[in-house]
Amino acid sequence: MPTATPAREQRAAYYELIAQRQLSPLWESLHNLVPPQPKPRAKAAIWRYAQIRDLVMQAGALISAQEAVRRVLVLENPGLPGKSSITPSLYAGLQLILPGEIAPSHRHTQSALRFIVEGRGAWTAVDGERTTMRPGDFIITPSWTWHDHGNPSVDEGGEPVIWLDGLDIPLVASLDAGFAESYPEATQPVTRPEGYSFARFGHNMAPVRELAPHPTSPIFSYPYERSREALDTLYRHGELDAWDGVKLRYVNPTTGGWPMPTMATFMQYLPAGFEGRARRSTDATVYCVVEGHGTAYIGGDAFSFAAHDVFVVPAWQPVRFSAVGESVLFSYSDRPVLAALNLLREERL
Amino acid sequence: MPTATPAREQRAAYYELIAQRQLSPLWESLHNLVPPQPKPRAKAAIWRYAQIRDLVMQAGALISAQEAVRRVLVLENPGLPGKSSITPSLYAGLQLILPGEIAPSHRHTQSALRFIVEGRGAWTAVDGERTTMRPGDFIITPSWTWHDHGNPSVDEGGEPVIWLDGLDIPLVASLDAGFAESYPEATQPVTRPEGYSFARFGHNMAPVRELAPHPTSPIFSYPYERSREALDTLYRHGELDAWDGVKLRYVNPTTGGWPMPTMATFMQYLPAGFEGRARRSTDATVYCVVEGHGTAYIGGDAFSFAAHDVFVVPAWQPVRFSAVGESVLFSYSDRPVLAALNLLREERL
Amino acid sequence: MPTATPAREQRAAYYELIAQRQLSPLWESLHNLVPPQPKPRAKAAIWRYAQIRDLVMQAGALISAQEAVRRVLVLENPGLPGKSSITPSLYAGLQLILPGEIAPSHRHTQSALRFIVEGRGAWTAVDGERTTMRPGDFIITPSWTWHDHGNPSVDEGGEPVIWLDGLDIPLVASLDAGFAESYPEATQPVTRPEGYSFARFGHNMAPVRELAPHPTSPIFSYPYERSREALDTLYRHGELDAWDGVKLRYVNPTTGGWPMPTMATFMQYLPAGFEGRARRSTDATVYCVVEGHGTAYIGGDAFSFAAHDVFVVPAWQPVRFSAVGESVLFSYSDRPVLAALNLLREERL
Amino acid sequence: MPTATPAREQRAAYYELIAQRQLSPLWESLHNLVPPQPKPRAKAAIWRYAQIRDLVMQAGALISAQEAVRRVLVLENPGLPGKSSITPSLYAGLQLILPGEIAPSHRHTQSALRFIVEGRGAWTAVDGERTTMRPGDFIITPSWTWHDHGNPSVDEGGEPVIWLDGLDIPLVASLDAGFAESYPEATQPVTRPEGYSFARFGHNMAPVRELAPHPTSPIFSYPYERSREALDTLYRHGELDAWDGVKLRYVNPTTGGWPMPTMATFMQYLPAGFEGRARRSTDATVYCVVEGHGTAYIGGDAFSFAAHDVFVVPAWQPVRFSAVGESVLFSYSDRPVLAALNLLREERL
Repeated sequence: MPTATPAREQRAAYYELIAQRQLSPLWESLHNLVPPQPKPRAKAAIWRYAQIRDLVMQAGALISAQEAVRRVLVLENPGLPGKSSITPSLYAGLQLILPGEIAPSHRHTQSALRFIVEGRGAWTAVDGERTTMRPGDFIITPSWTWHDHGNPSVDEGGEPVIWLDGLDIPLVASLDAGFAESYPEATQPVTRPEGYSFARFGHNMAPVRELAPHPTSPIFSYPYERSREALDTLYRHGELDAWDGVKLRYVNPTTGGWPMPTMATFMQYLPAGFEGRARRSTDATVYCVVEGHGTAYIGGDAFSFAAHDVFVVPAWQPVRFSAVGESVLFSYSDRPVLAALNLLREERL
Repeated sequence: MPTATPAREQRAAYYELIAQRQLSPLWESLHNLVPPQPKPRAKAAIWRYAQIRDLVMQAGALISAQEAVRRVLVLENPGLPGKSSITPSLYAGLQLILPGEIAPSHRHTQSALRFIVEGRGAWTAVDGERTTMRPGDFIITPSWTWHDHGNPSVDEGGEPVIWLDGLDIPLVASLDAGFAESYPEATQPVTRPEGYSFARFGHNMAPVRELAPHPTSPIFSYPYERSREALDTLYRHGELDAWDGVKLRYVNPTTGGWPMPTMATFMQYLPAGFEGRARRSTDATVYCVVEGHGTAYIGGDAFSFAAHDVFVVPAWQPVRFSAVGESVLFSYSDRPVLAALNLLREERL
Repeated sequence: MPTATPAREQRAAYYELIAQRQLSPLWESLHNLVPPQPKPRAKAAIWRYAQIRDLVMQAGALISAQEAVRRVLVLENPGLPGKSSITPSLYAGLQLILPGEIAPSHRHTQSALRFIVEGRGAWTAVDGERTTMRPGDFIITPSWTWHDHGNPSVDEGGEPVIWLDGLDIPLVASLDAGFAESYPEATQPVTRPEGYSFARFGHNMAPVRELAPHPTSPIFSYPYERSREALDTLYRHGELDAWDGVKLRYVNPTTGGWPMPTMATFMQYLPAGFEGRARRSTDATVYCVVEGHGTAYIGGDAFSFAAHDVFVVPAWQPVRFSAVGESVLFSYSDRPVLAALNLLREERL
Repeated sequence: MPTATPAREQRAAYYELIAQRQLSPLWESLHNLVPPQPKPRAKAAIWRYAQIRDLVMQAGALISAQEAVRRVLVLENPGLPGKSSITPSLYAGLQLILPGEIAPSHRHTQSALRFIVEGRGAWTAVDGERTTMRPGDFIITPSWTWHDHGNPSVDEGGEPVIWLDGLDIPLVASLDAGFAESYPEATQPVTRPEGYSFARFGHNMAPVRELAPHPTSPIFSYPYERSREALDTLYRHGELDAWDGVKLRYVNPTTGGWPMPTMATFMQYLPAGFEGRARRSTDATVYCVVEGHGTAYIGGDAFSFAAHDVFVVPAWQPVRFSAVGESVLFSYSDRPVLAALNLLREERL
């Protein structure tokens, strides 16, 4: 073991000296700061619905939606303890709303998506319009839009509804750009009938005076029925990618781009017996299994998955899929952020 | 009557002199060249389907689709005689295809739209994919795409089909930018099943690797069923503009802009009894009545209209609509050209 | 000579019949309407400054700038007689302003460019800011901006100034989109000092709150000194294209695109002895020789050129240059129109 | 002091239970995760050049540029200890290069800017072209471009040169998107003469075939001489904002946007005696004083500044400037990131 050379001592003394002026020597940290390739601290992980559904339901007994504001169990990446993050820039949680409950109205600069896992009939309201939730629907509550959730009472046919929340909370925190407000009432007024926004923008048409692109999608609910139909049609027509199966991204119809500026969302179909090839990219991705079962190979690990499971693929980790039965996967990632900053890389292996 | 003054004679002599050098005095023509406001030579006009349908059908006996290449009666603006134009930049024609016929494959730099007026079951093929025509469908064959049309034989259930062709032929001619080619066979090969493009782009989703905007819409058929549903929903939800009724524009889902760079297309719903206010704009517009009847007031003229009629509103002419019965109007104009060149003006009167 | 067959007679009768309904048979005109390639009516032509300068100066004696509003000799294409056009979409004229004169203020939707040919010290004012003209400067007066021109008196050092006007008059006329207004006074008030706009946008910087792209360049004068320096530097650095020599386009610094939406402008340097290769494109182009002399080969014709000559290359005509002495050419075309409408084609031969 | 209630105990037990499944209760952390407004951990701070210049020069004796790869003292925010960050997303360092030294060639996905503080004659090479450094020049080495720095020997007139490095290292780290490579030689080959890129894009012109926007500015050196001239001209012309003085942003001339996608850069002029009003925004900003002296009031603190000092304003902290002498400030921030993600807010107080 080498003893400290004079040069080394001299440097140490210098480092102490400059530290008093809030300075540090780049050459000691350059390799870590500018690494040859990404080494994410986040880990691949899975949350199996069979193991956590009861825990989610128990939260219903433990705390009311009103008291919780949002009754959510956060899926915390084991590589990022205490961070309430599933990837360095993304948050994931499972939210439960019981019949007769309201999750009170608020807004925040964080963008949010909801992917409905189980139950039907609850609603989300966004800036005055409500949409009814059904399993597989993808719903957005964009940055700084008032939003609240509710569920009809048991008498009105309400049933417990669970969905996956995806937000850009860690990203917004890292940029010191979070603002939030509560609405003065539990629910905002309903000013437009359900289906209004979809009728305006959902049919490859747009109101004649609406020419400016919207930064977020004016369609805030993308029904599973139509997404599933698109995937089925393409599969029947022979579209099948060796890496992705049949994979579509959700679109903001006023731009052709992403529904929100910080999160991309996807839905893909894997036929029974599909053995996909591996790919990797710099966007970290959260998956939610909609239908089917199979195995996700992430880095060196294999995760068997079944319907409603949630798993996460960190940045630059190779991932490939093996589907036992016909499977459908929803996913979201920070791809728009990487693309906007010219930092998106992808490799098909 | 004043006699020629010396100055006037001097000027006339000068004008003759400079004419030999291909020069002319701007000050004699400035007011005409740079007018205070548009004075279109095109006139408002209507083609009543009841009066021309038989003529269209007679063309079927007179010439085959094969010989005609396109069996079309051109709707020629009475203010633009001999120009084969309905407005200075647009062309309109009614095309007939009989059971068992083929309109042979070609491509050209002119952009074309087809709006189906009568009959069902014929098809248009665009770059390897066919789409079946039904009344009210809006179909595009963008610039430089191979396209052919066909109709099943009577035995296969074919019936005569008539549609409105809209093209930018005069515009492309005025820019000396027309190119065309015939396909070596009557029909191009079918390489993709019907519905393929719509499944890829029609459901507010897009293939995951398709990120670049397409200059023309990848959806080449916009079915009436969906357009009508969108209009109905909005009307039921109380959307009603005092000028336009309920009016939507067709969209290229990869950009949120127009389906093709030279022609905008619209569909609007006027409830029974609607008495619209007048508007005018610098885009000249061709209308095709889909359903209903009423009156179009254009400049100082009134044109009663019924289903399948075609009428034209020249640039900057005020137009307003009165609907006797619930009416649906399809329309197309050169608005994208005016918008791209920063020449679009609109007034709501 | 064949007599009319029954079919021919039958068709003729049919054509007469349908003409009464403003209908015409497409199949008789299809080939002309949709030609295999462009056949412009405009012809290649040159206006030699040595032959027309005196005529321009004579106009100064014939009519005042005040009376003429714009004292301009229009360069009329011999293939487009009576059209006041140099190409189907463009206008060119030589404007003279004498010491002490004012060309009164007005605005119009037509876009205009000024390329200074001879003389210095006159000014153009655009929306409250004046710029002084020097030979080789490129100045714009975009659509609907107030603009007037003036020249100091002889006592103040004024001298006759001649420039080339380039406008999109024929294009705007063909779209029925021309509007114009006179300013109530001969000159508009000067509200900003000379150089203000250039300081804000000319140095690859922009005011911190100016983020939105401007549809037209906020720099309205591009001095020759800087354009020439850029060309020289590139030539010294070995940049030399076999077709174009060293060729730059003028840029709107807020977008990176064209200075105005209807006309592209270029300046190119041809070293002494340059023998360029031929190219052609669908934009028709007007050239003004800034320095040097040589020959332009356009289609089958050869035009020797010298400083201040103006010549025109119709759409799709091959053009190549031979430079005897070191030459600089300014040019403008309707390329942005063709590009915006997806109709631009170019071939390097 | 309340004892644990049964409910509290029950909840604690539940929290332990779910933690085993990598779940945590959102309702305990919601307020922190979605705060009402930003509370940055970064602090306002200043590095006074008079106090650190000697330390920078000492580094020259301590380690060679070759060994250090980059001989830089990192300016570490006192609120972000151990993070090598000046703001949550930005890095700042002072780099020294001595006569005769080379900082070897490499590339990385991190974007970098260099603002020259002291000394002249060193060079930066970017993708084959070198540019000579002079105080006040702003130079970029965009993401994934090969770059090296060098300094002529003393015999060739070299002198020590110090510049401020600004990079997006923390941002790229937080996104797990860092890649880097060393060039096989100390310096990359020079393939283009100095000034080439500027001649192509620096004069509000562009090569005729360059139409596509560049994601980063093709001008990689913005000379102080021209920036200063623009500011001077505007100040002489009466442009003076009550908050910013005269403030320009650097521009990518192919887009009108930022020179690089992750960092905005600005230069502003404050006349002697200027007492600015306060503003705040969600982009955190690093300032480098080019000329003059005065005081920056940041949040509740006052920092007197003089030439070459560097100070940092965290996100959402109010800042205002008081200039004793005529002052020029360079600054950079993560504004493009916030703007791209729709998270930019600004208040003028």
